[in-house]
Amino acid sequence: MSQEKTAITPTRQEDFPEWYQQVLKAADLAENAPVRGCMVIKPWGYAIWENMQKYLDSEIKRTGHVNAYFPLFIPLSFLEKEATHVEGFAKECAVVTHHRLEQKEGKLIPAGELEEPLIVRPTSETIIGDCFARWIESYRDLPLLINQWANVVRWEMRPRIFLRTTEFLWQEGHTAHASKEEAIAEAKLMLDIYTKFSREILAMPTIPGEKSEGERFPGADITYCLEWMMQDRKALQAGTSHYLGQNFAKAQGIKFNNQAGEVEYCYTTSWAMTTRMIGGILMAHADDDGMRLPPRISPKHVVILPVVPKPELEKEVFAYAEKLAEVLRHTDYHGAPLAVHVDKRDLRGGEKNWEWIKKGVPVRIEVGPRDIESLSVMVGRRDKAHKDKQKLGFDQAAAAIPQILDEIQKNYYDQALKFRDANIRTDIADFETFKAFFTPKNGDKPEIHGGFVLAKWCGDRETEELLKELKVTVRCLPLEQSGTEGKCVITGKKATLDAYFAKSY
Amino acid sequence: MSQEKTAITPTRQEDFPEWYQQVLKAADLAENAPVRGCMVIKPWGYAIWENMQKYLDSEIKRTGHVNAYFPLFIPLSFLEKEATHVEGFAKECAVVTHHRLEQKEGKLIPAGELEEPLIVRPTSETIIGDCFARWIESYRDLPLLINQWANVVRWEMRPRIFLRTTEFLWQEGHTAHASKEEAIAEAKLMLDIYTKFSREILAMPTIPGEKSEGERFPGADITYCLEWMMQDRKALQAGTSHYLGQNFAKAQGIKFNNQAGEVEYCYTTSWAMTTRMIGGILMAHADDDGMRLPPRISPKHVVILPVVPKPELEKEVFAYAEKLAEVLRHTDYHGAPLAVHVDKRDLRGGEKNWEWIKKGVPVRIEVGPRDIESLSVMVGRRDKAHKDKQKLGFDQAAAAIPQILDEIQKNYYDQALKFRDANIRTDIADFETFKAFFTPKNGDKPEIHGGFVLAKWCGDRETEELLKELKVTVRCLPLEQSGTEGKCVITGKKATLDAYFAKSY
Repeated sequence: MSQEKTAITPTRQEDFPEWYQQVLKAADLAENAPVRGCMVIKPWGYAIWENMQKYLDSEIKRTGHVNAYFPLFIPLSFLEKEATHVEGFAKECAVVTHHRLEQKEGKLIPAGELEEPLIVRPTSETIIGDCFARWIESYRDLPLLINQWANVVRWEMRPRIFLRTTEFLWQEGHTAHASKEEAIAEAKLMLDIYTKFSREILAMPTIPGEKSEGERFPGADITYCLEWMMQDRKALQAGTSHYLGQNFAKAQGIKFNNQAGEVEYCYTTSWAMTTRMIGGILMAHADDDGMRLPPRISPKHVVILPVVPKPELEKEVFAYAEKLAEVLRHTDYHGAPLAVHVDKRDLRGGEKNWEWIKKGVPVRIEVGPRDIESLSVMVGRRDKAHKDKQKLGFDQAAAAIPQILDEIQKNYYDQALKFRDANIRTDIADFETFKAFFTPKNGDKPEIHGGFVLAKWCGDRETEELLKELKVTVRCLPLEQSGTEGKCVITGKKATLDAYFAKSY
Repeated sequence: MSQEKTAITPTRQEDFPEWYQQVLKAADLAENAPVRGCMVIKPWGYAIWENMQKYLDSEIKRTGHVNAYFPLFIPLSFLEKEATHVEGFAKECAVVTHHRLEQKEGKLIPAGELEEPLIVRPTSETIIGDCFARWIESYRDLPLLINQWANVVRWEMRPRIFLRTTEFLWQEGHTAHASKEEAIAEAKLMLDIYTKFSREILAMPTIPGEKSEGERFPGADITYCLEWMMQDRKALQAGTSHYLGQNFAKAQGIKFNNQAGEVEYCYTTSWAMTTRMIGGILMAHADDDGMRLPPRISPKHVVILPVVPKPELEKEVFAYAEKLAEVLRHTDYHGAPLAVHVDKRDLRGGEKNWEWIKKGVPVRIEVGPRDIESLSVMVGRRDKAHKDKQKLGFDQAAAAIPQILDEIQKNYYDQALKFRDANIRTDIADFETFKAFFTPKNGDKPEIHGGFVLAKWCGDRETEELLKELKVTVRCLPLEQSGTEGKCVITGKKATLDAYFAKSY
């Protein structure tokens, strides 16, 4: 019986990883590519990415950064310069060794071997660093504030669409500054932008914090990060912003003449958000009926579904639907027109309705002959049960829809926040209880257990190794520290740091 | 003496290829990357690309297409399916053979050899075709109208920034249709959009036409193209739109059930424009003072240059400049606010002024103490001599600037059109004269000679081979054909086709 009502099989409770795949498929967001580890981002999924880009790009530019484009390929020798970096990044990567194909007995074979192999960028740190070293001469050239939208490649042995794929899309910011203070302020500014984006646009409650030594970006002095909670209670790192000190500048020779005429190394930062976020909002907002898209990020805000009981009524119903669409398309929603689609396909109404539920469109409006008679429309909301519809006068729609969308946006945020807070344990004080919390019990679905533990931590690097067996990591040291003293949840030693611990993606 | 007035050395007449490189550098558009054949697109150049993208993306979407993203890598076996395609494209390409790096005696070496090498996409035809074959089942799924913004790689032996680079950026549209007529109409629609973009936004006069058999896209039945003339009188192909018939559909199994219930192959198209256009507008619009950017595509429309004769006046002059900037930023220019920059850097006025001339910004406005007194501003236009300045009242500026920009836009178009038409020869009727026209004479700079020849052509494939020695090609058969009969300029045989011949990039 419950199965009939459920669009997605299995449910989250039954099999979370498989539910994830089925929601992706039902919402038509992306699919596995014929190339191992890669994905095809389908139009509905890509439009979400475009909305993410639009907001982030505008914030990045508003704060003085400019976009540029750097090459896809990195010479092997660039990576040799930066041993730490290679250790952290370049081990699993796509290596280009030939630049030609030759036909031999009907087969194509690689030819034209390169003198120096090229790496497909796993990140552009080294190639951008090379440019910065040439572009920066004096303090007058600083700060240099660059962003790039690009594809990057990190060979993945266990790929999962959006969460971990060999190729993914991202923005990567790279900046150089004349002082430590300015560079740290930059890294924090970007963390703030990411946090606001996360909360206001993606409806994602967020714990902004700093990474522990063991989880830091290779070569960074400080890694700021955003941690999200998924519905299986695991953490997902949604974005990072690194203060790199003078480490990269020294490895790459990024120097400047300061105002006193002396040569100094620059202080650099880098920060990124990726298509991974799409997987994150799915695992946080979707339900057993499919995707639920926060209105601020949804490719369409409203889908209008004409109900045509008899073919001879089609023309009139379509005209009414188009008239409604026109009115709504001239309605402002957060500075842009409402995005409205009229679905005129020749499919059964129930089928169409479910398709849009699964795709996560925030508002569905049905219009049929009865609505035309009473000059009204029937509004279905993705944050309510699918049969729970609200009758609105045609003339009310333009004023009501933006309000309804804002309510949906707020509901998704509140629900995610409530879920997260219900799954943060602050009462775990010793390692035995900690271990038990992170170990599946009889009756637990192995993939749904645990949550976040907020506890005192001594901060010792070695304790992070102890967590590895549990597959738990220090997710972050939240920026808001209590300042109190207590006992380290791992060692029992005196500790002042507040830390979040969790399993993660 | 003339050298003093000239910002770029050498001039176009002295050395066209070197002038091109120097304009690129002086305008800070792009530079050679440390990776052979690749470029770094610098912020000023990338912002031009972003403006191109913004316009094209909106036109592509307005006409019903949706964006998606397909993988960077293509399995070797995909290319083997399409022999014609490989012949045309995949011979010079980046081949990924390994997926790991290992450290050996301080060196990094490729490891983890792939069972099947991967090609970095030279175009996405084959990988998108594979998706289309899976996505399309019935006529209800058609037309399928997809566009992708991506980087592509074609190994270049003689790279030249923007014109021919190993990696470049583009949009590639791929569509599938139920009928030949509809697919041809689609290919033509995109040619029309490209033509309008070219003329109205890039100020580039354009000859829309069809490619000859020898110049067609490998596997296409019809290749529509846009030809531009550069200031060295060579042609540059600015965009193409292909009707692929059922050729690709057959190679890749893109089939659909038609309304009669029969299985048919789809009719497909593809079309693209690239970062090459940036090189094209440079070679068409730039002069011996540097870049000249058509206002509709310029990252900034107006640069305000505060003139500060004494340090104590700085505050007042800067305030006046900012006030002007504010007014202009609230002024509409073709549906968006004017893009205005105030250059407050501590440099000599002449130096700043020349920098912006070289970068090609359409309007420079100087404001100094005298302008404040008389409530006026001094306007310099990039389409006029750099000392030719126009005094405007402060209150006139908001109304005058958009008009001035439209005049500049029109002037660039008119100048390019006049130059082009002066270099199209319509009076060459025999092969001897034709050969002489395309052969540098004593005193000609080898890189500046010839032009376009519009003449009758018999259309025989073999005649195209005869042109190869001259490094001349049939650029296009213009869509507007005269319908008259005459003699083929190559063979002297009876001919009805009108064709453009030229050397090209």
